Amino acid sequence: MKITPVILSGGSGTRLWPMSTPDHPKQFLPLTSAETMFQQTLARVDDPARYSAPLIVANARHQALIEAQLGGRDATLLLEPAARNTAPAIALAALAAPDALLLVMPSDHVITNSAAFQDAIDAALPHANAGWLVTFGISPDAPETGYGYIQLGDALAAGVHQVARFVEKPDAARATEMLATGDHVWNGGIFLFRADGYVAALADHAPDMLAAVTSAMNNAARSGIVVHPEAASFAASPSDSIDYAVMEKAARVAVVPVSMGWSDVGSWDALAGLAVPDGDGNALAGDIVTVDTRNCLIKSDGLRIATIGLEGLTIIAAGNDILIMPKGRAQDVKKVIEKL
Amino acid sequence: MKITPVILSGGSGTRLWPMSTPDHPKQFLPLTSAETMFQQTLARVDDPARYSAPLIVANARHQALIEAQLGGRDATLLLEPAARNTAPAIALAALAAPDALLLVMPSDHVITNSAAFQDAIDAALPHANAGWLVTFGISPDAPETGYGYIQLGDALAAGVHQVARFVEKPDAARATEMLATGDHVWNGGIFLFRADGYVAALADHAPDMLAAVTSAMNNAARSGIVVHPEAASFAASPSDSIDYAVMEKAARVAVVPVSMGWSDVGSWDALAGLAVPDGDGNALAGDIVTVDTRNCLIKSDGLRIATIGLEGLTIIAAGNDILIMPKGRAQDVKKVIEKL
Repeated sequence: MKITPVILSGGSGTRLWPMSTPDHPKQFLPLTSAETMFQQTLARVDDPARYSAPLIVANARHQALIEAQLGGRDATLLLEPAARNTAPAIALAALAAPDALLLVMPSDHVITNSAAFQDAIDAALPHANAGWLVTFGISPDAPETGYGYIQLGDALAAGVHQVARFVEKPDAARATEMLATGDHVWNGGIFLFRADGYVAALADHAPDMLAAVTSAMNNAARSGIVVHPEAASFAASPSDSIDYAVMEKAARVAVVPVSMGWSDVGSWDALAGLAVPDGDGNALAGDIVTVDTRNCLIKSDGLRIATIGLEGLTIIAAGNDILIMPKGRAQDVKKVIEKL
Repeated sequence: MKITPVILSGGSGTRLWPMSTPDHPKQFLPLTSAETMFQQTLARVDDPARYSAPLIVANARHQALIEAQLGGRDATLLLEPAARNTAPAIALAALAAPDALLLVMPSDHVITNSAAFQDAIDAALPHANAGWLVTFGISPDAPETGYGYIQLGDALAAGVHQVARFVEKPDAARATEMLATGDHVWNGGIFLFRADGYVAALADHAPDMLAAVTSAMNNAARSGIVVHPEAASFAASPSDSIDYAVMEKAARVAVVPVSMGWSDVGSWDALAGLAVPDGDGNALAGDIVTVDTRNCLIKSDGLRIATIGLEGLTIIAAGNDILIMPKGRAQDVKKVIEKL
């Protein structure tokens, strides 16, 4: 059976302000290459021998962006009438393709080693087909405090483990400890499971959610490739993540550790880490003139930026806005947003 | 006899790029206050008991700016058909008002202590009326290498000296030496003399220039308050500064030292020095959001600028351009201009 990709296009996108905005979040921007992360996600599952056309679960306000970036690819758009976190979003896809094997992926992550990802999917497939809810765990290379962690339990097969437990975003000491144990991986929010298995898990652990989403899909309006779940029913669903609502509670949950050059591009600092610098250590994109400037990330979508004597800054111009800060301060972008 | 102000509006204005441009040089920008430096220069000589209406010598491309910033004040505009430096520019004014006592001033300087300036003019008046060419020397407070210097000679009266000699822009060692002697002042480019005395000096020391400018004025076109000297004649004039062409050669040249809060606002660093900082040491003008930002000069004529964790930077946004550099690097703006 082919795999049906489920691409989740959520997120408000404020951490990459000013380029990323609620109307134009980061997955739709060409931040890391000429392609957007949404397009890269589509490309990752475009082998017709292996994958069916994707189901895309997205905010209705992004419909035009998605249709443009699909560029004629076959797909189904499930437009959420409201934001209810990942568990109901994935439920929409599971009910739209109840017999499918679903590969659930965020649309705003970077994976540089696609072959490693496909190998991990191969490792997961027998267990997913057998009814396990499989998650992919990113092999950690730093004590990150911004991700949830998964502790590996007993091995089920080569490269496949039962999940011992899910760990909330840790503090720095706990993160360092988990990195040292070697049996913890980052929760990357990528899953492989049968739609019917997910629906059954919802029936067990989140019956109100399943009822709300089922009603929304039973009363959905359809127009071409677009499905509009019924708004009032969907809005009645509890808002919860798949981790809380299902993965932490279900019985047969497996994890496949994978090292695949993954990044959630969660900040300008993360993006700076992905950029390929020039001879001065700068990563420049746009109309930029530098004099005696080193180790800077500078991006502009239109304004002309001139720099003299700068070192280690991130400078981002988008529309009428420009953001200037040292590398390492990207977490404070939210303080700017609060002030605006 | 009243004094006739001669306001020189030359200069290409590239040192304050991107706000200052050839079409909109710094004297027409509200850089140091709500008024422009051109308007401040007009205001300095607006006492009708003491001053006649000014003669303004300017580039024809700035006529509309000047008329707008005159705001209905009485004035005569002498529009240069070509740039020929200050000696011919002042000759236009001297020939337009041959019986006047002329106070020649650049339009792009700041003088914070106007009373001290008026006192210096009072000290200079008897000598100017008696036929001396009087220049005003700015009492130096730092070993600046960007200005010419004037060495004071014998005293003619209280606060008035013969000029011992003019000194070219010095190197740092020579500037330090001159500052230490206490008998050198900066050449601020401000002069008081009789028009006929200046014309006589031109006849002695720059007869070709006088002939060319005389021909340009004899064949000038006049329209309302605007005088258009004849282009071909004016273009035939040698290009030279009043210092080289006249002051360094004429016999009776005096200097009045004055301490009057003078600045030529010759760079963004100079402007930063004039700005009144807020509690964080920042001088902000425009739509600016700062987080943890100190001792910065930030100006925007439209773009919204957000900063995080910055210290001691100059950030200037004008039109589609933004310039970012540490304070102290303003002399390198020309390197940016060369690259553009």
